[in-house]
Amino acid sequence: MDSRNFDRRALLQGAAAGAAFLAPGAALAQSGDEKAIRAAVERGHDASIKRLQEWIALPSIAAENRDMQKGAEHMAALAKDAGFQHVEIVPTSGHPGVFATLDAGAKKTVGLYFMYDVKQFDPSEWSSPPTEARIVDKPGMGRAIVGRGATNQKGPEATFLAALHAIRAAGRKPPVNFVLVAEGEEEIGSPHFAEIVRRPDIAANLKQTIGVFMPSNGQDPDGSTTVTLGSKGIIECELIATGEAWGRGPGKDVHSSLKASIDSPVWRLVQALQTLVSPDGNTVMIDGWNEHVRPLTAREKAIIAENARLTSEADEMKSLSVKHWIDDLPWQASQERLAAAPTANIEGLVAGYTGPGGKTILPHKGVAKMDFRLVPNQTHADCVAKLKAHLAKRGFGDIQVKVSGGYDPTETAEDSRLIQTEIATYKKLGVTPTLYPRNAGSWPGYVFTAPPLSLPAGHFGLGHGSGAHAPDEYYLIEPSNPKVAGFDAATMSYVEFLYALASART
Amino acid sequence: MDSRNFDRRALLQGAAAGAAFLAPGAALAQSGDEKAIRAAVERGHDASIKRLQEWIALPSIAAENRDMQKGAEHMAALAKDAGFQHVEIVPTSGHPGVFATLDAGAKKTVGLYFMYDVKQFDPSEWSSPPTEARIVDKPGMGRAIVGRGATNQKGPEATFLAALHAIRAAGRKPPVNFVLVAEGEEEIGSPHFAEIVRRPDIAANLKQTIGVFMPSNGQDPDGSTTVTLGSKGIIECELIATGEAWGRGPGKDVHSSLKASIDSPVWRLVQALQTLVSPDGNTVMIDGWNEHVRPLTAREKAIIAENARLTSEADEMKSLSVKHWIDDLPWQASQERLAAAPTANIEGLVAGYTGPGGKTILPHKGVAKMDFRLVPNQTHADCVAKLKAHLAKRGFGDIQVKVSGGYDPTETAEDSRLIQTEIATYKKLGVTPTLYPRNAGSWPGYVFTAPPLSLPAGHFGLGHGSGAHAPDEYYLIEPSNPKVAGFDAATMSYVEFLYALASART
Repeated sequence: MDSRNFDRRALLQGAAAGAAFLAPGAALAQSGDEKAIRAAVERGHDASIKRLQEWIALPSIAAENRDMQKGAEHMAALAKDAGFQHVEIVPTSGHPGVFATLDAGAKKTVGLYFMYDVKQFDPSEWSSPPTEARIVDKPGMGRAIVGRGATNQKGPEATFLAALHAIRAAGRKPPVNFVLVAEGEEEIGSPHFAEIVRRPDIAANLKQTIGVFMPSNGQDPDGSTTVTLGSKGIIECELIATGEAWGRGPGKDVHSSLKASIDSPVWRLVQALQTLVSPDGNTVMIDGWNEHVRPLTAREKAIIAENARLTSEADEMKSLSVKHWIDDLPWQASQERLAAAPTANIEGLVAGYTGPGGKTILPHKGVAKMDFRLVPNQTHADCVAKLKAHLAKRGFGDIQVKVSGGYDPTETAEDSRLIQTEIATYKKLGVTPTLYPRNAGSWPGYVFTAPPLSLPAGHFGLGHGSGAHAPDEYYLIEPSNPKVAGFDAATMSYVEFLYALASART
Repeated sequence: MDSRNFDRRALLQGAAAGAAFLAPGAALAQSGDEKAIRAAVERGHDASIKRLQEWIALPSIAAENRDMQKGAEHMAALAKDAGFQHVEIVPTSGHPGVFATLDAGAKKTVGLYFMYDVKQFDPSEWSSPPTEARIVDKPGMGRAIVGRGATNQKGPEATFLAALHAIRAAGRKPPVNFVLVAEGEEEIGSPHFAEIVRRPDIAANLKQTIGVFMPSNGQDPDGSTTVTLGSKGIIECELIATGEAWGRGPGKDVHSSLKASIDSPVWRLVQALQTLVSPDGNTVMIDGWNEHVRPLTAREKAIIAENARLTSEADEMKSLSVKHWIDDLPWQASQERLAAAPTANIEGLVAGYTGPGGKTILPHKGVAKMDFRLVPNQTHADCVAKLKAHLAKRGFGDIQVKVSGGYDPTETAEDSRLIQTEIATYKKLGVTPTLYPRNAGSWPGYVFTAPPLSLPAGHFGLGHGSGAHAPDEYYLIEPSNPKVAGFDAATMSYVEFLYALASART
């Protein structure tokens, strides 16, 4: 769905993380493995880049049912190749996922979350073919791989796999064992990912881990990075009004002059939509929607205030082409709202004639593509039910709510071992991360953080990429800014993290 | 915009037309020209069909700016070829039209309205290539030309031109003089047609005519036909909400999670739209919209009642895939509403992501494609102003009302010479027409019927076609139902009509 830092720039250098945590152990340095592994990373560089390029050449797109089985097979082969001993493709009610384990004989086990799917793309919008993964010079940025999935999420995932290859090539064993779960439906809202995670044997394996993370090239162009303690949940759905379901209006598109005697399903959609939000479009007005919304804690507000203080509102407004936040909120309040508010958003409207100019038809069907962001303690199931009940109560029960995906919000404790080790490792690598209480975007971390697993879950990794979901998505291989990790340094960030996790007190 | 009888089936055989009119003069029969002209029509059949096919092969589509100059040149060449002595292409602020005159040395002059443009089409939806104008067997119907423009309006226009060719080939002169005005923007609401008609010399020529008609293959599959005394006017426009114009929301599409802190132009569009109509979508609620609406006259209601009595509601519902009329009106009341009610219709909605599945964006722009049908005495200019004022009054002044076309309603008196001669000619040809007070669709007849010209204006012609604006548009060349005129009989219907017009008392 969303990469962790879609376009937020974390500028909080050196801010206090707040909670106490252990001083960063120089675990990798003390192991005596560092030099050999670093040499192996460099030797393996070309093969690692080639591995990423081959992966990008096979785009799996769930929304288009494009190469899903092949994508799962490729994911499985990548895991096998990286040293996972048990690798299996896991069927679901939707597209298949992958489950894999790597037993390194270590004391600790770490969970990994991968996605093998990518967002839709239109090659005509790209300056470089999106499946060719060409390496190009990005002026002011450095050398970059350009392709769909380069940053979201194949690039960071391939970088992590490069770390496992390097550890083996250096004659070492990984310092932790791994349990990997991968899905092919992240970009459509992970509708079947829970089926994978909750399969009893897979859940039992995950239960043994100290937490789950997703590889992520989390550096902004200035080198800064963020540790995020949670994400909103999401409902992605279509609201579909048709003459057929309504029993009024036409069952097919008819001539528009007939509006004088025939009802319009599109007007019906408009009228139903406007009941979902306040007149300004900013507050969800669905019956009962906000009853479980938990306000921000004092600690969350404090983190946001510190972020706001050290971040440029003007830069953010410019990058988003925005002149006013909702209700003309000041910067800090707008950032609180971003983290705290549930949303109802129209991603797209499609009805009748959509080409150039007009066409005199009375359409039989109208569709609103929507997403709803959920905050703790809202749940996907409860909110879907409330949306349907709200429509039915107002006589719009015939409007179909076609849920394509989504999941609950996710939260991880700031003082968890996973988060504290992330922070410590970033600092060891010279990057003091910004803490962020809750990403306004979404990822399906809830399957790990909610009962029964109740594990910490987050993202980790250095490096920079951008353009997720957009044309010319890229991942910097050799950045011109020395504060940003290139491919090899990002690979080493995973090695550092794994050694730190292994040495951390559990 | 709309062909006269888009899909209405007139079943009123033998109903009294109501007003008194002259007994049909057998003008053609009495002229002694009939046999020679009929022979010429038959000799010219193949050339006439070829002429139509060549015309269909050159689709001019104003909405796509496709072959407009070429289309005007082709229209001019067709007029020249049919005997018009003066032919000129008339530039407008939009696409060019054609003005032509044919001086036959006759006492009376008749105005002709032609369109050379056609509606957009998607060849993948057609069973026969839409520009190849193939002649195919339509099961149960007969031999038909299938192509874009076959019935709307090149087919009937080419049939009329065939009549002029036949009269000349028979060594005769047309019994009336002609003033022809043609446009290439009928399908986008004739936004510049008045510029042609009101050019002083053209207006002066038209002022000399006894009325203006458009060739039309007005028979239904059962052979019945309709004489319509007017049509609604229309406003075609887009309502466009953008972050740029609003000064709120994003100036480009941004990530949908930002809905928590950024306003949505699409929600704004939805909120603005819902103010335009009653909650059921059926009554226009724009301030002052209905103040000039003139109720149906007793005579208009009587005609509608007679039509309703003789027409099958069940057949009409089936053909439209409709189970209920607005407000569950009974058949006759629904037909009154069809003729009498102004409408606001959403032809299409386009915002944000419109492809398969979803895409997590907050769009910067939303568009509603709309048409408004106007009844006497509403006017296009007044209603556009009212729409804009209504939006502005509610704080939606930034929503752009982009008018692409439209015009006022049109009406012609039932007792006018043009209408009475149409009725008489149809009867002479064995078809008693149904009178219809006002077409719910639209055509730009107002330029002729409104001051300063104040001429009668209508449609005339036998023959059958259907599928205007739809795939597989067709025109029957050799109908299997003997009650429906084929191409040659339709050609002769124009000859008959012209002779009747020439002999009618002015």
